[in-house]
Amino acid sequence: MELLKAIAENLTSVKEKSPLIHHITNYVTVNDCANMVLALGGSPVMADDIEEVQQMVSFAGALVINIGTLNQRTIESMIAAGKKANELGIPVILDPVGVGATDLRTKTADRLLKEVKMSVIRGNMSEIKILSGLNVEIKGVDSAADDTDGREIAVGLSKRLNCAVAITGAVDIIAEGDKVCLISNGDKILSKVTGTGCMSTSLIGTYAGASKDYFTAAVAGVMTMGLAGELAFKSLESEDGIGTFKVRLFDEIYKMNEEKLISGGKLLF
Amino acid sequence: MELLKAIAENLTSVKEKSPLIHHITNYVTVNDCANMVLALGGSPVMADDIEEVQQMVSFAGALVINIGTLNQRTIESMIAAGKKANELGIPVILDPVGVGATDLRTKTADRLLKEVKMSVIRGNMSEIKILSGLNVEIKGVDSAADDTDGREIAVGLSKRLNCAVAITGAVDIIAEGDKVCLISNGDKILSKVTGTGCMSTSLIGTYAGASKDYFTAAVAGVMTMGLAGELAFKSLESEDGIGTFKVRLFDEIYKMNEEKLISGGKLLF
Amino acid sequence: MELLKAIAENLTSVKEKSPLIHHITNYVTVNDCANMVLALGGSPVMADDIEEVQQMVSFAGALVINIGTLNQRTIESMIAAGKKANELGIPVILDPVGVGATDLRTKTADRLLKEVKMSVIRGNMSEIKILSGLNVEIKGVDSAADDTDGREIAVGLSKRLNCAVAITGAVDIIAEGDKVCLISNGDKILSKVTGTGCMSTSLIGTYAGASKDYFTAAVAGVMTMGLAGELAFKSLESEDGIGTFKVRLFDEIYKMNEEKLISGGKLLF
Repeated sequence: MELLKAIAENLTSVKEKSPLIHHITNYVTVNDCANMVLALGGSPVMADDIEEVQQMVSFAGALVINIGTLNQRTIESMIAAGKKANELGIPVILDPVGVGATDLRTKTADRLLKEVKMSVIRGNMSEIKILSGLNVEIKGVDSAADDTDGREIAVGLSKRLNCAVAITGAVDIIAEGDKVCLISNGDKILSKVTGTGCMSTSLIGTYAGASKDYFTAAVAGVMTMGLAGELAFKSLESEDGIGTFKVRLFDEIYKMNEEKLISGGKLLF
Repeated sequence: MELLKAIAENLTSVKEKSPLIHHITNYVTVNDCANMVLALGGSPVMADDIEEVQQMVSFAGALVINIGTLNQRTIESMIAAGKKANELGIPVILDPVGVGATDLRTKTADRLLKEVKMSVIRGNMSEIKILSGLNVEIKGVDSAADDTDGREIAVGLSKRLNCAVAITGAVDIIAEGDKVCLISNGDKILSKVTGTGCMSTSLIGTYAGASKDYFTAAVAGVMTMGLAGELAFKSLESEDGIGTFKVRLFDEIYKMNEEKLISGGKLLF
Repeated sequence: MELLKAIAENLTSVKEKSPLIHHITNYVTVNDCANMVLALGGSPVMADDIEEVQQMVSFAGALVINIGTLNQRTIESMIAAGKKANELGIPVILDPVGVGATDLRTKTADRLLKEVKMSVIRGNMSEIKILSGLNVEIKGVDSAADDTDGREIAVGLSKRLNCAVAITGAVDIIAEGDKVCLISNGDKILSKVTGTGCMSTSLIGTYAGASKDYFTAAVAGVMTMGLAGELAFKSLESEDGIGTFKVRLFDEIYKMNEEKLISGGKLLF
């Protein structure tokens, strides 16, 4: 209940402060990520040229780095922006999309983790395992893994990197050091819309831009997406499909409020 | 009434001619901009490689340059396409997204204004002030300014650059030389969808591609977005949110017609 | 009826295998393409850096190459990924967006066809004529041509390149060698949403990722889009427009099943 209350307060804080969330992200889901930030109450900005990212991030409440369509030009921008954010005490949120699928993604994630201190990392089980140095069979950018030792993995990575770690899946796991919570909100239809993972990361970034408690921000971002997904799914009628679901998902994020989070949030410890 | 009639005729002309609107634009809102052009009756094309932009723009009714996610590669393409458009007498519409937020954006906008003759510039108050050489505090790409001397600023910039200038906000201001009009259409929910500014610019480009009167095109583009926003907002029910609003916004642009513009357009002089 | 049955079985196979569809595509319609692949039952991945495309494609069921916003960096990635796919026997689907509009597009398409063996090419009549070495007046990336000799053109290109060729338009033509079929599904409103061509190509890629019969995959992809467009259009009410239509289009792809394809597919030979 303490945590649910903190999450609710974090939402109010987002709406009051409207933090600027600088993204260096992929071109597949970027529009949805921007609209998610706005729907929650933040202000998105996307900028990826090496000549401007350090200056842009200096105005930001948080920096979201998403490697979904990384390239050699933008990798350097991610590093430069991340370092600048570290210098200024601005939280950096990493979405290691598809890490493990290619050497470029794995090397880039490793380099990012070496050169930039992250505040939160959010990925699916496969991605978090790869970052943890575990073996996992990867196919593209979607998770193949389904594990019971996720709690241990999240705690381990969190301790090693000294940041919050969120593993999203049927049950989400968020850890920061020995602090762990599980979230059972969500609906499997969320996996049928591209970028709900990216969007969760952007929500975490938005929450982190309005609070210094990044564990709460991580839980809040993941729970908000899961709860909105549930509510959106419930609102569907039999003739509706994934197009309508996606529209309603944005409706529900936009209408999210303290009461809904407190009454609908499903936390397990 | 003269102006409203000219706007309505410009719309009919768009639907008859279906002008090709070449965009060099950002990857955040590009899909929405393309769909806006189509919904109004134009034909969008996006192409940004330096090897093809001059050839592509030569078929176009108008060129839209939007610096929302500029990079060093695309900046050169913007310049090259803009110069070619000037040579051929094709109108160029500039959206100086986030100018003032970073030196790269400010330098790029300055360079564009030096090397390319614009027909219309559309920005928020902060952006237009920066282009006017005025001081303004910038945070990211959304407007922080709220001014009463907007009319003077728009006229000043218009005279200096010899082009139409549109400042969009709660009340929109469009100037071309000493000709000024204000538009009070719109709803504040428009600011909760990413890219409604970019989309307005694309609508201006589409109108400009079907008429040689760029002042009317600027007023028409801004008014069409504002009026569609109003109508879309009115159609919402209590359980709807920003996702449904965005869908309806496209519906309303698609259904826009002469009658709606004439009866719904709110012009002030 | 044989073909309709094969199409229906191909859909079931997509849903069972959920093939990974690697795209190197444009930034205008990429999100819609990813969501189309997911809606049909596949798994999309977008990756375009030269350092990773060969590795990424090696996990894929099919590779979709779409030149809609090609640039000099991504052209090399298209070639490299295409060659690797050929080596591994993975089908490559080409969408030659806007070929003929600029020399860069024409040269790139020529190079792709020389260096990469395609399994399916999908374009509008203008684009397929250009690839066939015929003269055609091009304006941007949308088709200007409307022909009666499409059947002959499709067969000719198919034989020359030894691949399936799909020409989409009011009536769609699909050929592989002397095998030809026409599809009369679809509604003209589809041309009012940007990227329905790109999305058809992504659907073809998804079908091809789950079957070795690429002619059937090409027919299936085109028919699925046409039929979904018809059903989506029928579901509209008088106040709906293009925004609602697009949402329903995704709904209908998501709800597509064997029965609908068999009862609704309109094949002509």
